[in-house]
Amino acid sequence: MERVGVGLLGHGTVGSGVSKLLRESAEEIQLATGKDVYLRRVCELPGYTHPDLDPALVTDSFQDILEDEQIAIVVELIGGISPALEYQIAALQAGKHVVTANKQLLSQHGAALFEAAQASRAHLRFEASAVGAVPVIKVLRESLVAAEVKGVAGIVNGTTNYVLSAMTDTGAAYEDVLKQAQQLGYAEADPTDDVTGKDAAAKMAILASIAFHSRVTLADVEHEGITSITAADILHAKAFGYVIKLLGVAKLIDGAVNVRVYPAFLPKEHPLASVTGAYNAVFLESDSFDEIMLMGPGAGSVPTASAVVGDIISIVNTMPGGFVQNCTCYKTLPFLPHEQVMSSFYLRLQAVDKPGVLGRIAAVFGEEGVSIRSVVQTGRGDSAELVMVLHPAPEAAVKRAVERLVELDEVLGSPSLIRVEGEDTEAR
Amino acid sequence: MERVGVGLLGHGTVGSGVSKLLRESAEEIQLATGKDVYLRRVCELPGYTHPDLDPALVTDSFQDILEDEQIAIVVELIGGISPALEYQIAALQAGKHVVTANKQLLSQHGAALFEAAQASRAHLRFEASAVGAVPVIKVLRESLVAAEVKGVAGIVNGTTNYVLSAMTDTGAAYEDVLKQAQQLGYAEADPTDDVTGKDAAAKMAILASIAFHSRVTLADVEHEGITSITAADILHAKAFGYVIKLLGVAKLIDGAVNVRVYPAFLPKEHPLASVTGAYNAVFLESDSFDEIMLMGPGAGSVPTASAVVGDIISIVNTMPGGFVQNCTCYKTLPFLPHEQVMSSFYLRLQAVDKPGVLGRIAAVFGEEGVSIRSVVQTGRGDSAELVMVLHPAPEAAVKRAVERLVELDEVLGSPSLIRVEGEDTEAR
Repeated sequence: MERVGVGLLGHGTVGSGVSKLLRESAEEIQLATGKDVYLRRVCELPGYTHPDLDPALVTDSFQDILEDEQIAIVVELIGGISPALEYQIAALQAGKHVVTANKQLLSQHGAALFEAAQASRAHLRFEASAVGAVPVIKVLRESLVAAEVKGVAGIVNGTTNYVLSAMTDTGAAYEDVLKQAQQLGYAEADPTDDVTGKDAAAKMAILASIAFHSRVTLADVEHEGITSITAADILHAKAFGYVIKLLGVAKLIDGAVNVRVYPAFLPKEHPLASVTGAYNAVFLESDSFDEIMLMGPGAGSVPTASAVVGDIISIVNTMPGGFVQNCTCYKTLPFLPHEQVMSSFYLRLQAVDKPGVLGRIAAVFGEEGVSIRSVVQTGRGDSAELVMVLHPAPEAAVKRAVERLVELDEVLGSPSLIRVEGEDTEAR
Repeated sequence: MERVGVGLLGHGTVGSGVSKLLRESAEEIQLATGKDVYLRRVCELPGYTHPDLDPALVTDSFQDILEDEQIAIVVELIGGISPALEYQIAALQAGKHVVTANKQLLSQHGAALFEAAQASRAHLRFEASAVGAVPVIKVLRESLVAAEVKGVAGIVNGTTNYVLSAMTDTGAAYEDVLKQAQQLGYAEADPTDDVTGKDAAAKMAILASIAFHSRVTLADVEHEGITSITAADILHAKAFGYVIKLLGVAKLIDGAVNVRVYPAFLPKEHPLASVTGAYNAVFLESDSFDEIMLMGPGAGSVPTASAVVGDIISIVNTMPGGFVQNCTCYKTLPFLPHEQVMSSFYLRLQAVDKPGVLGRIAAVFGEEGVSIRSVVQTGRGDSAELVMVLHPAPEAAVKRAVERLVELDEVLGSPSLIRVEGEDTEAR
């Protein structure tokens, strides 16, 4: 039986998961590929040992991986930009296939990587960089080729989904829930990339590039996080029949691309609303298939390792002579400015409780061409809390209206403005 | 550019969808495969014409398809057992790859088809036979090779899901909703295969075979339908926090397989509970990835055609020389008798409303080793309605207990017994 050697860069939680799966699922992989896919070499820090790893397989020199002719597939799991970028490019130039989970690298240097891969007719695979064990990239690239995908909405960050789910379940404040999530290991000691939406933005750049066949980089994805979501917003969401989720939203509108990450209200019957805790999900829209959703664990060493092994199997199955198509970004679509996107909003603000205030606020929206779908006004002594849901309108108009409201003497403090998504889907 | 000819057997709603997609997505398919995949020939009834189809492509003789050396892939969309079986086998024996949506054929004659395919080293692909546009077979076969799947729970019949969703939304009776579904085109004039669970059973046989690597045929799948679900059951489900779904459930328990289709209570927060209307979904469980769900339209000509084209692309991408593995049923696992499966049940029965009745009923359950989780008793004059949810117990014990209850003088009429699923999942 033909043998295919795998070289592993990094043997941390995911890397050791990959080496374990290659060992324990060797028979299943042989049956699925007709080849003996085995761990040939691991690149780690000098002196690295691991109870399940033959020390003879470990090297601290990337050159040993690069120059080993038995290694057909290099798996990069060291993360970060450098030297991961240089290693991947060198491996691809040497004609080796590359599998990676490195979302920051792909979302910032994808063009260089895909170019190197295509020049060598080597595969570059990165399922684990997006939604962990959920094979959304494979589905987009292979199953939905003939379908024009027009929308991708995703819960693609487990930390923030855990925090928002816990806030919803317990009514607790953001800071308290985050602290608890850190203690339980659902949030990192420095959760900045997660809670600001940057991690989700990198994943959405990758997903949008594949879905729309046009390059989207991290810099193209505007992102808002969940740090300003309050227990009051969560309560109002419930009262209106919504849940709050941090959504990555990529839309293809009249041939232009818009990709963003923001917290949004979702109707509680929406399929994405049932995705709670550390789970991730991606919701795809197209005229061809209406709506498809894929859900699963977004992180974790075993699910991520399983996605890496899935990529290895995909590559092995095309050997020899299979078609190599890495960069599916064969279009260069324009970006649609955020201001022109039509969105529906939830707005919460405090106002002086006297006659005519609601009328004045409604007039501002009317002048900006934004219509109000529902208002709940709750008196609180001298002031009143106004909670409204607005009909879809260009974002620029809504933001102009809110800026004008803030300037009114009757409006107190700064309003809370959150988008409403998923009300026009069929799948519920 | 290399050309790959496709021969189409049947140009009905799905077939015409496939020919339309091949035409309209020709560029995308070229970019994804590096080959020109084109419709070479269509086999239809004598005299068949279609506005979008060049009459020169139409033949009424399967021999014309079989003997055409330019046809590398035969797409069978005529349905039924014969002559679809003979045509597929002939095509495979001639070394042509076959794509089909024929679930009844696959679930009854899969072994013969896979054998013919493997003998010729030709691909047999059938994504559209299971969950329409949702590529669950591809995900199971390619992405999750290294994961041992232990459970498949699916909403795999759109008609029954539409009927149950409408009963839940409106409170209407089964017969009225079915009539309406027929008028709207969501149910066939003869809905027997759908409402009895037979259609779902065929799909579950296919999915279980792929998931567990062991052959499951239609005859191995016990199926109950939705014809006995009443508006009262739906109401009680709501009151207890559940929804009723027709579920296909395949379990791998201690190395033995159990596959069934039955209506079940699902917690309303379960991801499958949000799958309403004509949508389908499959929920996969494994130690490697915990839980993955895939959701999308289960039927419809365009989604089904999109799945067929996805299969065509998969085949073309392995040409030439790619690995061919059709029959992934390399194990022969035993079946676990239904009586031994542990299940939780909802039970509704009418009883004489006098002191001691509940005690007598509880005693019967106790003697059979079944414990009661909750009871709601509602007086109705002379009689009382008892609604209970039971803790998981071997099905044989629950059924023995219910048989004994029916024999009690105090119990009136026949009880309603429905399984409760999905309470132990993590994804909510």
